[in-house]
Amino acid sequence: MRHLARFLPILEWAPRYTRAEAVNDLFAAIIVTIMLVPQSLAYAMLAGLPPVVGLYASILPLVAYALFGTSRTLAVGPVAVVSLMTAAAVAPIALAGSAEYVTAAITLAFLSGLVLLAMAVLRLGFLANFLSHPVISGFITASGILIAASQLKHILGIRAEGDTLPHIVAGLAQGLGGTNAATLLIGVAATGFLFWSRQSLKPLLLRAGLGRRLADLLAKAGPLAAIILSILAVVVLGLDEAGVRIVGEIPAGLPPFALPSFDPALWLQLLPAAVLISLVGFVESVSVAQTLAAKRRQRIVPNQELVGLGTANLAAAVSGGYPVTGGFARSVVNFDAGAATPLAGAATAAGILAATLFLTPLFRFLPQAVLAATIIVAVLSLVDFAAIRRTFVYSKADFAAMATTILLVLFVGVEAGIIAGMALSLLLFLWRTSTPHIAIVGQVPGTEHFRNVDRHRVITNPALLSIRVDESLYFANARFLEDRVIAEVAARPGLRHVVLMCSAVNLIDASALESLEAIADRLRSAGIGFHLSEVKGPVMDALQRSDFFDHFKGQVFLSQHEACATLLGDAVPAQPVAADAAG
Amino acid sequence: MRHLARFLPILEWAPRYTRAEAVNDLFAAIIVTIMLVPQSLAYAMLAGLPPVVGLYASILPLVAYALFGTSRTLAVGPVAVVSLMTAAAVAPIALAGSAEYVTAAITLAFLSGLVLLAMAVLRLGFLANFLSHPVISGFITASGILIAASQLKHILGIRAEGDTLPHIVAGLAQGLGGTNAATLLIGVAATGFLFWSRQSLKPLLLRAGLGRRLADLLAKAGPLAAIILSILAVVVLGLDEAGVRIVGEIPAGLPPFALPSFDPALWLQLLPAAVLISLVGFVESVSVAQTLAAKRRQRIVPNQELVGLGTANLAAAVSGGYPVTGGFARSVVNFDAGAATPLAGAATAAGILAATLFLTPLFRFLPQAVLAATIIVAVLSLVDFAAIRRTFVYSKADFAAMATTILLVLFVGVEAGIIAGMALSLLLFLWRTSTPHIAIVGQVPGTEHFRNVDRHRVITNPALLSIRVDESLYFANARFLEDRVIAEVAARPGLRHVVLMCSAVNLIDASALESLEAIADRLRSAGIGFHLSEVKGPVMDALQRSDFFDHFKGQVFLSQHEACATLLGDAVPAQPVAADAAG
Repeated sequence: MRHLARFLPILEWAPRYTRAEAVNDLFAAIIVTIMLVPQSLAYAMLAGLPPVVGLYASILPLVAYALFGTSRTLAVGPVAVVSLMTAAAVAPIALAGSAEYVTAAITLAFLSGLVLLAMAVLRLGFLANFLSHPVISGFITASGILIAASQLKHILGIRAEGDTLPHIVAGLAQGLGGTNAATLLIGVAATGFLFWSRQSLKPLLLRAGLGRRLADLLAKAGPLAAIILSILAVVVLGLDEAGVRIVGEIPAGLPPFALPSFDPALWLQLLPAAVLISLVGFVESVSVAQTLAAKRRQRIVPNQELVGLGTANLAAAVSGGYPVTGGFARSVVNFDAGAATPLAGAATAAGILAATLFLTPLFRFLPQAVLAATIIVAVLSLVDFAAIRRTFVYSKADFAAMATTILLVLFVGVEAGIIAGMALSLLLFLWRTSTPHIAIVGQVPGTEHFRNVDRHRVITNPALLSIRVDESLYFANARFLEDRVIAEVAARPGLRHVVLMCSAVNLIDASALESLEAIADRLRSAGIGFHLSEVKGPVMDALQRSDFFDHFKGQVFLSQHEACATLLGDAVPAQPVAADAAG
Repeated sequence: MRHLARFLPILEWAPRYTRAEAVNDLFAAIIVTIMLVPQSLAYAMLAGLPPVVGLYASILPLVAYALFGTSRTLAVGPVAVVSLMTAAAVAPIALAGSAEYVTAAITLAFLSGLVLLAMAVLRLGFLANFLSHPVISGFITASGILIAASQLKHILGIRAEGDTLPHIVAGLAQGLGGTNAATLLIGVAATGFLFWSRQSLKPLLLRAGLGRRLADLLAKAGPLAAIILSILAVVVLGLDEAGVRIVGEIPAGLPPFALPSFDPALWLQLLPAAVLISLVGFVESVSVAQTLAAKRRQRIVPNQELVGLGTANLAAAVSGGYPVTGGFARSVVNFDAGAATPLAGAATAAGILAATLFLTPLFRFLPQAVLAATIIVAVLSLVDFAAIRRTFVYSKADFAAMATTILLVLFVGVEAGIIAGMALSLLLFLWRTSTPHIAIVGQVPGTEHFRNVDRHRVITNPALLSIRVDESLYFANARFLEDRVIAEVAARPGLRHVVLMCSAVNLIDASALESLEAIADRLRSAGIGFHLSEVKGPVMDALQRSDFFDHFKGQVFLSQHEACATLLGDAVPAQPVAADAAG
């Protein structure tokens, strides 16, 4: 049972499900449903898909995640960034609006599901760690800007193409003359209303004396209210006749049973995008889920999250949806509204199903400009310029990776941006470790502690050079170390001993081992003793496996203090170091 | 003058050139010329080029390196591994023996020259550090095996194709029936003679009472003797009529003035190979040059070496040659023979020029089997199985990179092998740093030193947890650290303080900074103090640039000992923990 519960987390909470939890879950489900209906329609439009596909992607995937996911509060469904990535991946393959386009999107969801499950089976969840925070943050900020810009055409009521910022801006500039006044009015009004309801409505309702829950519900219903009001306006004023573009007929009924394409050529074309969508979706989901779980002292199992998201995407694929993942804003709302178990997600699915069955005729007259406004307000909250500034101040290397990601996403494409950002952050880390910080250290007076002579008032002895190398020794910096030690020694006549302080050396690979042997040779031929201190257990284990100590004539000291005391002939007795370190 | 000397090292030694140095240089040049003539012909054949191209590549490039290189003793010219890489790069582009093939090889030399010079200008010499020793060693061993196998067809006197080990073996098996007895006899005899002269001739000559220099000269003349004897045998016995394949007519005269192709499509095809040849050639040259320079307390300037090798390759390109680099065996011979300055190289060039002008008619009857024997004996000395075993024992990660390189070189191709080896060694380093060693530490009794509780008898205190993380904190391990610290804390009720000992933390990037803040938040909400100790200067500088210390409520201690003394005072009793008990 415990074993099974690892794979079906529902078995953990279902047997102890209480009435209070049910009330909380239901309330949360209502709020999330109200929020999710307009978002589903809008994000599907952003992905270049018929709006109803967004609804389909918000039913079965939620049930799948409720069964297999470990987060109690993560709200799964279509999200802005993944919708943008879907559009970028599918647009070169099929014409927007065509049946092939929908099939390609379904296939992308299917592949993402397979990739996520494969990562779960191969326990490759750690790969997500190689997406650094600055790259993710830059990616989301740039995507937000790109998405907002891409939606302006709907606000203006013009047709414009483009998937990079320059193209989008050029398209807008070209089409500006054809702006539809009624559409612009609706779009601007909706955007203003949504910003206002997001920021000011809840405090206002609370001041007006409403209960906390009701205020919450009404504030979150802002997008729904915008939809209802704009539909009424279109119907009453006949705005569609005035050129206001509307969503049009949406088929009512259950999600269709769909199958992805099994064309190998298409799979090959979509696979890179599927991998990126899986990685980005997984990183985003897990960050949100962990943040929320920590607040209630619950636990997330990242590997099981891969299963939850993987099955959610497979569910999206077989029910006519498109790639889904955990949504940031939506999950926070779910959590704040009191969602206690994944049943809230299942109840949300039921709510969306009801909307799909009964409300779709109403959406026919919904202006596209209002959906665009929903998207713009949602994504601009993801744009985080403060993070860019913070990163710039803290680390130029991190900033370089972040800036590269942002610029490439805006000016080349989302996939190029995230791949380049990831590659650059890895290369920069390698570059930094290839030229490590090396300090000459001395004893801090009155302690047994040794620190950099350039930064602290320390005691040194001209006969003994203590060098601390601040990096693991491996092929990329092996030669650097060799050159540096030899140069330091050459600058110090009268030197009798060199002690390499290895407190920061977490690894010595085969290349570095050869460098150490070369250093030992060079120093021995110059009549200078070469010793090691503070060698860590795992490093010492490896050295003892090699034949290093067959040639090494120096000593290995437990601590730098002991090295100095022993070599300089102090009274402090030495300990049986090598034996100790071997233990 | 000093400034200029950096770019023209000749200005450093030429003004002080002595008569003794001249005698030494001349003697070394004679030995190297005797060795280089057969090697040049043989390696050109290995590269799929007319033998005379090898001679051309051994004239002007040596003069260019003598002018711009910093090594006093490096002997530049065609080498086995680069010849193999040339064949692998050019064979898919043009038919062996055709004019296009020669032009492509010339263009490859030109591109390699440009790549090396570009690396010099951009100061990218450090890139060579990313080729780890095990990958280089594996690459050379596998190349040696591949080259030796590819030459067997010349020894058997059969035609066979193939550029991977299985293809070569299959080709040999298929053609075995057509073995030419006379060729096989010459080939086996030459191989046996060369092995014997390499290993036993010099001691024999010394025992016979010859002077050291003369013995050296005669021993190194083994390949030349094999050539002369085999030419005589062919001419006297008319072996070419008996089906022994000979080199054929070689045009006498000065190297031609040649130009590379400037076809952009060809450049694009050859560029990856040019980059790899440049990297491999540079790494090999610099290792040899540094080893030899260290013996005489001379210095190599790696960046200037890029200029030396770059101009050597450009010189090869304009004089009908093909890619060159510093040869290992040849440089050792040059050094041992007493070469004192790069003039030895220039004198060697004159020797090869003389051979090209006057001796080429003699080489017409040279059996290809003897050239093949020269190659086989030379490359088998590069095969180093002991290094494979040593690497296996020392580090499984290094071994994995090495084994991948070897297997891919043998079974897929030289370029695939070296690229995969390089990529794998980088990925393995990243993977290792992404799951760092983390130790709970305690005080070594009687010292201020703190070590792993699992390996040493140390003193700990239940109210204070000292965690030492043995890696720089960066995006790939940020989440790992967070999970691990939280898990350790959760397992210890009664804990009042956590001290993160940062002696091995050489970097905290923006992602890890967020993790540190998350850890601090979590511990604060649990009522546990969170502190840092032994934070290094550069890391502390970065933290102080960020807003970390605006929120951080803990203390930063100079040493772990100070942290414990301050946080615990002397009031709390300490308890010793046995290493085996904690195990």
